[in-house]
Amino acid sequence: MSAGKLGLIAGGGALPLAIAARCDVEARPLFVVRLTSFADPHLVRYTGIEAGMAEIGKVLSALKAAGCTAVCFAGTVSRPDFKALKPDLKGATLLPGIIAAATRGDDALLRKILSIFEAEGYAIEGADDILGGDTLPAGALGRVQPDAVQLADLKKALHVAEKAGELDIGQGAVVCDGLVLAVEAQEGTDAMLARVAGLPADLRGSAGAPKGALGKAPKPIQDLRVDMPVIGTRTVEMAAAAGLAGVGGIAGRLILIDRAAIVEAADRLGLFVWGEDRS
Amino acid sequence: MSAGKLGLIAGGGALPLAIAARCDVEARPLFVVRLTSFADPHLVRYTGIEAGMAEIGKVLSALKAAGCTAVCFAGTVSRPDFKALKPDLKGATLLPGIIAAATRGDDALLRKILSIFEAEGYAIEGADDILGGDTLPAGALGRVQPDAVQLADLKKALHVAEKAGELDIGQGAVVCDGLVLAVEAQEGTDAMLARVAGLPADLRGSAGAPKGALGKAPKPIQDLRVDMPVIGTRTVEMAAAAGLAGVGGIAGRLILIDRAAIVEAADRLGLFVWGEDRS
Repeated sequence: MSAGKLGLIAGGGALPLAIAARCDVEARPLFVVRLTSFADPHLVRYTGIEAGMAEIGKVLSALKAAGCTAVCFAGTVSRPDFKALKPDLKGATLLPGIIAAATRGDDALLRKILSIFEAEGYAIEGADDILGGDTLPAGALGRVQPDAVQLADLKKALHVAEKAGELDIGQGAVVCDGLVLAVEAQEGTDAMLARVAGLPADLRGSAGAPKGALGKAPKPIQDLRVDMPVIGTRTVEMAAAAGLAGVGGIAGRLILIDRAAIVEAADRLGLFVWGEDRS
Repeated sequence: MSAGKLGLIAGGGALPLAIAARCDVEARPLFVVRLTSFADPHLVRYTGIEAGMAEIGKVLSALKAAGCTAVCFAGTVSRPDFKALKPDLKGATLLPGIIAAATRGDDALLRKILSIFEAEGYAIEGADDILGGDTLPAGALGRVQPDAVQLADLKKALHVAEKAGELDIGQGAVVCDGLVLAVEAQEGTDAMLARVAGLPADLRGSAGAPKGALGKAPKPIQDLRVDMPVIGTRTVEMAAAAGLAGVGGIAGRLILIDRAAIVEAADRLGLFVWGEDRS
């Protein structure tokens, strides 16, 4: 990991907070760009600025003035209405290329934006680089072990998630007794799990008799430095509410937002958390 | 089309009603098996019986006594909780094979059930065979023509639906400005469209500025005699409510529940209905 000052470009959710906290622990200098209407308000306690998504000139100037040597993009953003963006001068020159990339999907958009920051000389660091050991290990993370049927459901969910990822659709899927109950696209994992909870009871498990699994896998064409899939305690709790027996991913390729809290929630709710070993 | 007496095995939704009405028009003899808790109550006006999903012996006896020579499976059923089924004697002997097929997905389950009826000597007729011309024609069905961007979204939605179908996931997808907004699995098309309507407004279109399209395509491994995708006026209305510019499918491979009503709704709401020509 670079020891230089980090510019954290922060979207929504808990991931940017986890990264900022890790920089604190390691006494690494940090500058946070809070993306307007996405970044968690708690990030204001770190040195930084707020910027709109198209104010690219403002962001680059601030990173340079702050002396950052690396940047990390983390957190969720919804795709903007490009016609409604208010770009600054630098943003206006870059926007046509960004819009062209956006029409080819989330991955093309992301790679385009990364290339702009790389061209300015910044190293790109992934959330997983910074969070270090907090990715999913191989095997069972908590106390609960999946049985053979549950493990088969998880493996199928990961397979479907990866196939969906090849099409640039999303990162997650839910499988129960061999049947694909849901595939995640723009609604996100939480909304997908809420939908599974609303399916007819005979299709899924219940708190007393949990069945099936959530699998999250990175898109094969995804830039792992920026957009690794993530689970947190809320993922585990919503999976339990959907009657699932567990959640999982590919070992080393799923970020745990708070490992201890995830294990506590999974053990308390009786869910497995499984990392498939692909090494 | 066979002129023999038809045994209609009726699940939920409007498709069985449309088939029964068509038999009426053609004065074709009909016997309706109303699947308990799925079949539309209006089907009681046709000669027939009600039967549970696992009462296979009862259904086969009734079809034989009624003199049916062909059967048609139509309408939606949710996958049963196999442990809770109450099979009759014939059903009990067949159930282990059916359950084994069910673990391999919806398609394997369907083919298994068809094979049981074929083994008893019945011809299997598809809803589309019976409904005749009421499948999607090539090109624009109503007054509204898709523009190039909208047509590209529809083609991508059909591509995603077919790829998802290869994985036995579902039949439908929604794409807007090149981005896959939603993929249908067990929740069904209506629930998927309701979900799109709930996505952030900057991801999708609106009534004043519609964008994107719903595509429905049969699974490549699907038995077209039984499980052709379907649209009706409700599909068009919910697509409009989700801000979509139109809906479509592959010409000849999408059943129109009520063609005139679909055209009326699409023209009134300003949506295109497009059949992709693969001939």
